[in-house]
Parts: sequence; structure tokens; C-alpha cells
Amino acid sequence: MLEAAEAVRQLTQAGAALAGRGWLQGTSGNLSATLASDPLRLLITSSGQNKGNLTPQSFVHIDEQCRVLQGEGRPSAEAALHAVIVRQRSAGSVQHVHSPWATVLSGFYAGAKGITIAGYEMLKGLSGVTTHEHSEWLPVLENSQNYTQLSAELETLLREYPDIHGVLLRGHGLYTWGADVAEAQRHVEIIEFLLEVAGTTDMLRGRFAQAQ
Amino acid sequence: MLEAAEAVRQLTQAGAALAGRGWLQGTSGNLSATLASDPLRLLITSSGQNKGNLTPQSFVHIDEQCRVLQGEGRPSAEAALHAVIVRQRSAGSVQHVHSPWATVLSGFYAGAKGITIAGYEMLKGLSGVTTHEHSEWLPVLENSQNYTQLSAELETLLREYPDIHGVLLRGHGLYTWGADVAEAQRHVEIIEFLLEVAGTTDMLRGRFAQAQ
Amino acid sequence: MLEAAEAVRQLTQAGAALAGRGWLQGTSGNLSATLASDPLRLLITSSGQNKGNLTPQSFVHIDEQCRVLQGEGRPSAEAALHAVIVRQRSAGSVQHVHSPWATVLSGFYAGAKGITIAGYEMLKGLSGVTTHEHSEWLPVLENSQNYTQLSAELETLLREYPDIHGVLLRGHGLYTWGADVAEAQRHVEIIEFLLEVAGTTDMLRGRFAQAQ
Amino acid sequence: MLEAAEAVRQLTQAGAALAGRGWLQGTSGNLSATLASDPLRLLITSSGQNKGNLTPQSFVHIDEQCRVLQGEGRPSAEAALHAVIVRQRSAGSVQHVHSPWATVLSGFYAGAKGITIAGYEMLKGLSGVTTHEHSEWLPVLENSQNYTQLSAELETLLREYPDIHGVLLRGHGLYTWGADVAEAQRHVEIIEFLLEVAGTTDMLRGRFAQAQ
Repeated sequence: MLEAAEAVRQLTQAGAALAGRGWLQGTSGNLSATLASDPLRLLITSSGQNKGNLTPQSFVHIDEQCRVLQGEGRPSAEAALHAVIVRQRSAGSVQHVHSPWATVLSGFYAGAKGITIAGYEMLKGLSGVTTHEHSEWLPVLENSQNYTQLSAELETLLREYPDIHGVLLRGHGLYTWGADVAEAQRHVEIIEFLLEVAGTTDMLRGRFAQAQ
Repeated sequence: MLEAAEAVRQLTQAGAALAGRGWLQGTSGNLSATLASDPLRLLITSSGQNKGNLTPQSFVHIDEQCRVLQGEGRPSAEAALHAVIVRQRSAGSVQHVHSPWATVLSGFYAGAKGITIAGYEMLKGLSGVTTHEHSEWLPVLENSQNYTQLSAELETLLREYPDIHGVLLRGHGLYTWGADVAEAQRHVEIIEFLLEVAGTTDMLRGRFAQAQ
Repeated sequence: MLEAAEAVRQLTQAGAALAGRGWLQGTSGNLSATLASDPLRLLITSSGQNKGNLTPQSFVHIDEQCRVLQGEGRPSAEAALHAVIVRQRSAGSVQHVHSPWATVLSGFYAGAKGITIAGYEMLKGLSGVTTHEHSEWLPVLENSQNYTQLSAELETLLREYPDIHGVLLRGHGLYTWGADVAEAQRHVEIIEFLLEVAGTTDMLRGRFAQAQ
Repeated sequence: MLEAAEAVRQLTQAGAALAGRGWLQGTSGNLSATLASDPLRLLITSSGQNKGNLTPQSFVHIDEQCRVLQGEGRPSAEAALHAVIVRQRSAGSVQHVHSPWATVLSGFYAGAKGITIAGYEMLKGLSGVTTHEHSEWLPVLENSQNYTQLSAELETLLREYPDIHGVLLRGHGLYTWGADVAEAQRHVEIIEFLLEVAGTTDMLRGRFAQAQ
């Protein structure tokens, strides 16, 4: 398991890199790392932090019920989603970002309940994928402010699709995870790249253009 | 109230961050912080400054009539708009940026007198908004070089819509504000993000495409 | 007149800023400052330099016939265009950049021999422009490898349009200038901003879309 | 020939610059430099490295059969493509990046087996090109996980088109090369610039828009 000070260092670096891409504007997004799994203990950014400029004071330690064990500030209401993912995927890190493309495409693909992304070499950067012929399903979940219900829906979704690497919340953003902070950050970069490719392709094709 | 040296430090940092996004090209935009409210005293960037690289000499102190109380240089003619916003909203900071999306969309939505932005989680970053089901009205005001008249129109608009978080000037840019420098900067980042999402959505939909 | 060491410092800083925007990819573009006007003496980047990372050795001093007076390396064949602009406009600095939007739009507007940009507040950042109601004519000149002929055409164009602030070479890029390095850099940033706005507007309108 | 420590320094710098443009997301791409040509000895990034932040430990030395001669880690399966290019072109450096535009356009132009890019001044930044009237053929090769076969196809292609400066792998990315690290990096920047110009032009034209 990751030592807390090292987890802070790694998440601070990831936050700066992802904020530099414009994916954590305002104080959006949240980043966590698993400190212990039994009982569960997570290090997570507290609510209202600018993720491009994190410090050790920007984090809290929480347990499985998202109660604060250490640190000042309160965890985001979305901490419950992190806990669900860590439990379901034995993830070492969960990273949640808001990008324009994720926000836009989650709306266009909500009716289809997700986006299929296939045929790209970049897919091989997702853990366990060994060929560009892979077809990745990126589900879109309806957004909600009822995080208890959203957590339950996310848990059901993760059980239904054991092989997915991320989930979009509609009009909200991307959740992805990895065995450690570096892998979770790699998954953010790759899925965001693939969403930009998908969106640009749809635009060139006029896929969503309506008859005037 | 904010101490002047600290206000300079915070606005300099905000200027560098927003210029890094390409929203303050040339010497466009202006940033202010409220030093005292009765009588009103504002710290504001003087005219012709590169906002990505501000120094203590880049600012002037002005009163409610935009007369210079301290510092070299003259305030922008737009300082009057800052004073109106501070009075109407008890704002601790007003930030005005020029982005391509704000400029483009303010033209397309001028006929409708504004843009409605609804359904996005990012809206929760706007002060007082607690759900993505919020519908934000971002009015578009006609641009003018008559700043006395423009100030009066802005004042009327702010009274008419007590809940808005920003205003677009047509073909010009965004004005937003906050209780302090950090909140005003957060509002810039969030509204610019939402404009990029709105513009990209319009493009994918072919919303403004004319029959050939 | 500008001292050579100070001109090197200012152009190095401008090069880094403009390269950071992606407008000087490869070793494209060139930047100059006027060291003396009678006889003409220019400091100009020599051929093949990466403009994001200039050093004093990246520059040569040239006279009106583009002969090297000082420094190693040879001036770009485009140095002749710099000399024409300095003479015609008494410019203190000429800056030439290659951006995707300038390259793309110079092709679409070549038939009209230029682009009219009007109604934007950002126009006020161009020297001498005092209202957004200004209409700026940005001519497009056919590109050529015959720089003697191109220089003559540019000179004719500058005489024909005494109020313009820049010229596009078709499929090539933007030339602009200013009284000093800072003003020329401001003109680059403003014209590039306006081209992005014009191009995005054309895309939303489907202005150049062909019937399928 | 390049000394190994100097090659590490140059590729590390190139990696940081190209990653900064978003062309090496995740741990995608790979960069090499030729240390000796007879027998062939290449310095190449090992598999799984973040190319924006390379260190001397991020590289291995390989021979023509891609066996590791020095260093920890294993070379990417794509190292064989680097070896083919170095042999065929006597290249001093091969650079492979993944950009959204290369990925998207390689799909749209796969049917035509490549993209013709002509009429742009930026083409003059490609080694040996002296006029914008040059027409550059950028072939698209079908992607494959069978690198032995892909190497053979690439070799055939390089023999068939002795004047090309780069190759796209479909849905994968760009391979380009140069006499040294600086020239190869310049070729990346120029070809990516030209792809952005080509893609933006196609978008404005509605070239790939399908009847609704």
C-alpha cells in the first residue's frame, strides 16, 4: 500500500498535469489514492480545492462511509463514488476530471447509454488491452445529486461491465481508475484523447447535424 | 477588506493563469479587487498592461468616479463597469476576459439577448448553485464606446437579474465577479468552460449552419 | 532607436511567447527589430532558428539590401519583406508567424483578396483604432518564392492601404508590425485572435460547406 | 555519430516539447537516435515511459534485431519500425507521436491510401523542399499488431516513395525522421501543423459530412 506522504506527492503531480490540460477548471474534479483496503482508507482531495496547485492540506483521509479520519476540510459528496470504484476494482487510485469533450459527448451519447471506441492504437494504453482491434465500451450514467442512488447505480454498472476502464456521468465528466496513481492518470489521458478523436470524427462526419 | 499588497499578489497570479489560457491576448481584459466599500476604493489594472505579467506598477487605486487615488497610469474606460458591479453585487473582485468562444457566441446569441446554460455539473462551481439542474442565464449586452450609457445599462441588467453570475458584451468578452479574487477567477474558468461546451455542441448540431 | 542587446532580449521574449501559442512550429516565422533607420539597420532572426528558444547567436544585423553586417548565419529570404515594411511604416519591429488559422483562412479568402474583420472590441488593441465599430481590412497576397517580386507587391499593397495593420501571405502566414517590439507582438496576438474568431464563426455558419 | 549521453539529452528535450503539445499522451509514442550504423545501434525509449519526463533510465540501446545491448526495460514492439526507417533513410533520429488530428485523418484518408498536402509555405521546413509549390504525399499504412509484417510493408513503402518525409499508421499516429534529433523534431512539428491545417480545411468544407 502507498504511504500517505508519497500518495500526496503523486496526486499533487497528477493534479498539476491534468489541470494544465484544462480538465480541472474552477475547483472541479477530484483525485484519490488508496492507503489501505481492509478496512478501506482513502486519501482524497477535499471539496473546493484548485487541483492544479494542491498541497498536503488539500487532502483528507476517509473511511468507507466517507467519514473524515484525518485532515481539515470535508470530502466532496462524490467521495462515495471513489469508494465504490476502489471496492469493485481494487483500484489504487481513482481520478475524476471535467473536460469539454467528455461533457459534450456524454450528452450526445446519453440516448445510446454510452460510446463504443474501437480500432485505435491508443486503446493499448488501457490496462489489459493488447491490440487496437479492441472495442472499448464507455458507459454514460445519468447525473444526479443523490449520491447514494448514484453510488448504487455505479456499483451495478461496474458489475455488469467487468472490463470497462471508465464511466462518463452525463453533462458532468469522466471517472477512471488504475492499479496506482500513474496508471489512473494514464487512463485519464488516454480516454480524453479518444474522446477528442471521437468528437472530432463526429464533427467531420456531421453525425449530429440536424436538417435545417 | 483585502490589503492592497495582497490584492496585487492575488490579481497578478489570476492574470497569469487566465492569460495562460489565451483569454487576455494583446493587452485586453482588466482585473480588479475591492479595497474598501464605503467610500468605494478599487485596485484595478491600468490601461495597456499585459495581464500575463503584472507587477505592482501595473495597478492603480480608484474611487467610485474612477479617479486615480494612487499609482501611475490611467484606468481603462471600462473601470466604470467594475464599479457598477462592485456596488450592485458587493463583489470583492471583478474579472473581465476576452476569449474566442465568448466573442463568437455573444454574436450568435445577441438576437436572443443571452444564452441559457443548463444541465451541467460544472454549474455547481458558480456561487450559490447546488445542482446541475440549475439553469443559468448569461445575458448579452450590446457593446458600446459610450461607457456612461453602458454602465447604466449594466446596472439595470444586474437589477433585473439578481441571480446571474456573468454578462457578455457583444463581440467583446465576459464580465464576471465573486466575493474574492479566487471566486471571481473560478467563475471565469467555469463560464468559459460552459461557453466552450455550448459552442462545441452548437457546432456538432449545425445549429447556426445556413442553407447553402 | 533600440540598442542591439536590448532588441535581442525583447525579441527572444516575444519569440518564446508566440512559439508557446504554436505559431512558430518547426523553424518557421521570423522576427526583427529596427536598430537604425538612416541608413537602415535591422536585427533579424537568421534562417533555421527555433524561435521558441533564441539566443544572441540566433540573430544577424542586416542593411537595406539584406547584406549581413554582423553575426553568423544568413538572413531568411523573407528579410526583404521586413525591410519593405520598416521603410513603408517606419516600424520598430516586424513579426511574421505561421498559425493554422492564418494558413487556412488565407486560402478561403484568397479569392476575395482579403478578409474584413469588423465589430469586435479586440480591434481596439490595433494601433490607432478607438472603437469596435472599426472595420479592418486584412489583405491576402499570393505567396511566391520570388521575393524580389513579392517585396514589390507588398510595397504596392502597403501604399494602397495606408491604414492596415497586417498582411496574410496565402498558405503561408501573417506579417504584422508595430512602433516597437511590444506593439508588434500585441498586433500578432490580436490579429491571430481575430482570425480564430472569424474562422470559428465561418465554421458555425457552414460558410464554406459545399453541397454534398 | 551521436554520443549516447548527448543523444539522451536531445531526445529528453524533444520528448518534453512534443508531450507539451499533447502528442504523447499516456505513455504513447517512441523516440530514437542512431548511435552507430554499422553494425546498427539505436538509443530508444523503452516501453511504458511517460515521454514528457524522460531520464537516462528511460532508454535502452538495441541492435538491428531489437535485442537490448544496454539499459533496463524492454523496447517497444515498434522498435522494429525505427530500425527499418534508419536503414532505409540513413536517419539519425526517428520520432513517432500520436496526435488527435493524425489519428482522425488517417481514418478518413485510409481509403485513398494517403493524404496529399500541397501549396503551403510550411512544407519548406521539410528537408530538401524549397518551394511551397511542392506536393507532399503522406501515405497511410493499415495498422497491425504483427510488427514483422508491418516492418516489411513499411520497408516496401519507403522504397516505393523515396521522397516522403513521414508515414501515418491508420488510427495510430505519425512516424517521421531526420538527419538528427532536431530535424526529426522539426518534421514532427511541421507535419502535425499541416495535418491540423488539412483537417480544419476539411471541416470548413464539410468534406466528409454525410447526407442526413
